Amino acid sequence: MQPKLAPLAECPCARAVETVGEWWSILILRDALLRGLSRFDEFERSLGIAPNMLARRLKHLAQSGLFERRLYSERPKRYEYVLTDKGRDFFPVIAALIGYANRHLAPEGASLLLAERETGAPVIPVTVDAATLRSITVERITVIAGPRASAGMRERLARAAAQNAAAQPKSN
Amino acid sequence: MQPKLAPLAECPCARAVETVGEWWSILILRDALLRGLSRFDEFERSLGIAPNMLARRLKHLAQSGLFERRLYSERPKRYEYVLTDKGRDFFPVIAALIGYANRHLAPEGASLLLAERETGAPVIPVTVDAATLRSITVERITVIAGPRASAGMRERLARAAAQNAAAQPKSN
Repeated sequence: MQPKLAPLAECPCARAVETVGEWWSILILRDALLRGLSRFDEFERSLGIAPNMLARRLKHLAQSGLFERRLYSERPKRYEYVLTDKGRDFFPVIAALIGYANRHLAPEGASLLLAERETGAPVIPVTVDAATLRSITVERITVIAGPRASAGMRERLARAAAQNAAAQPKSN
Repeated sequence: MQPKLAPLAECPCARAVETVGEWWSILILRDALLRGLSRFDEFERSLGIAPNMLARRLKHLAQSGLFERRLYSERPKRYEYVLTDKGRDFFPVIAALIGYANRHLAPEGASLLLAERETGAPVIPVTVDAATLRSITVERITVIAGPRASAGMRERLARAAAQNAAAQPKSN
């Protein structure tokens, strides 16, 4: 089930959730980014997803601008889904997910690693501040209102900051 | 709907999807990490989520080790959900999502920014290689088999590499 995002649509995290749509979309993007898949039947075979569900997800991702739909066969009419720059730039999110999974969900060792295409050297993804290159942890980083925050958003953030400060002693 | 992950369970991305469960879980984690929420009714109020759905997601996240359930009231019996280290370490993934959303899904300007807790200085998240600090892009980075990859996984990766090489001219 999809979250109803009405009160949250201003939150970029909720907006990303809304755009990428669902977990299937992440797996579709993974296949496009890492396996170079672009055709309906390739995604269908790789994911074992129901065709109507796959069609819906691809349509949503194309409407959101992450894929461009291109005709590759006139007869029968067949389309492929080619990643746009906006779609390719989702890769760092997937890399962060893979990093999390290898760190925390692979107690018996990783079965898949990120690596440099050129050298094959394994790569460990970390999320850092672009300016200082210091790693982003919840101990050091929080959220603040951006230039386009509504009054309601500013109020929620102020309340959250107070709640967060009060919550600090509880967390280890 | 939840992907059936049988053929993919070895993929860390699919494993993360399976563990975090669904989009609701990301929004629950966001609220715990960024708003310091821990109690059932706090999450319910913040997300406008159906109680049975919220209960299911919290239970799943606790079973997966991202939250620890603690009794905070004996009568009536009430639990709070406190992030574990494993839960707190999901923050870089959320930060990467926020970065993506602010870059691509906020054409009118960001309403929420990451910032240093101490100085309030805004922070732009990027995913980089921990060793070289070079940014992780799909042009530079791919996946390779890890030490625990099965024979089937190695074969799929080899096929994907071939497919990917063939697909390069298609992508811009």
